[in-house]
Amino acid sequence: MKTVAIFGVGLIGGSFALALRKAGFSGKILGVSSPETTERALDLKVIDEAAAPGEAAHAADLIYLSQPILQIIDSLPQIAAAVRPGTLVTDAGSTKSEIVQHAAVVFKPNQFLGGHPMAGRERRGVDAAEADLFLGRPYVLTPHSITQLEQPNAQQFQEWLVKIGAVPIVLDPAEHDRIVAFTSHLPQLASTALAAVLSGRPEPKSRVFGPALLDSTRLALSSFDIWGDIFTTNRAPILDALTSYIAQLEQLRDRFETTALRDEFDRAANFAASLREPQ
Amino acid sequence: MKTVAIFGVGLIGGSFALALRKAGFSGKILGVSSPETTERALDLKVIDEAAAPGEAAHAADLIYLSQPILQIIDSLPQIAAAVRPGTLVTDAGSTKSEIVQHAAVVFKPNQFLGGHPMAGRERRGVDAAEADLFLGRPYVLTPHSITQLEQPNAQQFQEWLVKIGAVPIVLDPAEHDRIVAFTSHLPQLASTALAAVLSGRPEPKSRVFGPALLDSTRLALSSFDIWGDIFTTNRAPILDALTSYIAQLEQLRDRFETTALRDEFDRAANFAASLREPQ
Repeated sequence: MKTVAIFGVGLIGGSFALALRKAGFSGKILGVSSPETTERALDLKVIDEAAAPGEAAHAADLIYLSQPILQIIDSLPQIAAAVRPGTLVTDAGSTKSEIVQHAAVVFKPNQFLGGHPMAGRERRGVDAAEADLFLGRPYVLTPHSITQLEQPNAQQFQEWLVKIGAVPIVLDPAEHDRIVAFTSHLPQLASTALAAVLSGRPEPKSRVFGPALLDSTRLALSSFDIWGDIFTTNRAPILDALTSYIAQLEQLRDRFETTALRDEFDRAANFAASLREPQ
Repeated sequence: MKTVAIFGVGLIGGSFALALRKAGFSGKILGVSSPETTERALDLKVIDEAAAPGEAAHAADLIYLSQPILQIIDSLPQIAAAVRPGTLVTDAGSTKSEIVQHAAVVFKPNQFLGGHPMAGRERRGVDAAEADLFLGRPYVLTPHSITQLEQPNAQQFQEWLVKIGAVPIVLDPAEHDRIVAFTSHLPQLASTALAAVLSGRPEPKSRVFGPALLDSTRLALSSFDIWGDIFTTNRAPILDALTSYIAQLEQLRDRFETTALRDEFDRAANFAASLREPQ
């Protein structure tokens, strides 16, 4: 692997470039982004060169798509037209079914491998990129067939994932989307809804709140520019998760003055503790 | 002020003791807690002496009640029977109406002053106590009359609050309880409900989740031993907040595929950002 092309040099793409470098990658890293972003990425030594999409797709041995989801989908035909046969095209989009379906139309088998690193920060953009972002974090891969992961290009990518400290997990795209609807998209909506309801209330104006309110509204700071694409491409699982959450809140309200409330609390506390246990 | 008695030497009571010391208090700090807790507090040099409740109440120039809410309420008659006339009794309970009402029955005017420091940590107990816990945090006071804060014992307490870096805010007890129902108790229930709904689902078992899920379930780690008393003593405002939150989530669900979703997101993000602005 001599040349890597990063499409979308933001938090994830920039962190992947820095992580490759830290893990010993000595080839060339091309960046495809807006002129402002590639200039900043060059300043920060995150990429070696800025490149146009077709040029980068043709030059690269690994193409890493880390734009917002709908931009990834839009870019697929142009990349498919320019990419060389042995090159692996992978993406870091937060939903997988729609991207993988679009990729299956334009790419030959074994050329595209869907991915989703379960890593993130509140800050966006290449300035927030860090080499250790993927360290110890799950990295979902959604191969189109069981044999795809045995192909040389996919093997090599998996080796680099392990070198940057990520923990690869293989999932069906639809299963991935159903899981993250509950583990990622629902927490986002819960925080956004909390901030939205408080924004219309007089109580917070008193400034009488503790650190818990800041924790609870941290996700609500996220931009709709990213989340809009996620919602568009994972509608049914998210609505299912949202409905389950509303039902749980109604149950807490109905049981508010019963001993069952302690049971709900204990169940929630045990679950929250289990998330924190080393695996 | 020569002697301070802390009833309940946990996170809040222990931190108040450490904060007083750091701010230059050179008198004696008595601790009233279980034998295990006072022994630990002595080891950690959080208190100077362990004392029995009646003895501590009689000896102290300031009595600081930082047990769970229902224990505070239970302790009031014994303290009222032992306290000297000029001593101020104050509490750090998370709800104020019920405590203040009970105090009004047993104490003479100007002897009891309700309080609530808007500070906290995930960890409980005297081992988690720290001198800077109140630094820059709002500290609500709920005097029974406008003139109470001008009394010498209340004046002196306010001076110490300022010395430990807290920001005193005067509120009516019922207003305080309505505010914290939205800014503190609702975030807790939102996190507990999220953890509770996920605990019954298969998705989290995949371990496919990012840092956001840990952030969102941090409050759910809290113990019902503390929250049960809060719910019991602030029922109506909390149910009101919970109903508003459920309505907001239903609105997000109903607007899921409309442009209004972006508006909700932007409104939430702006509010979350405003909470973080320096005042």
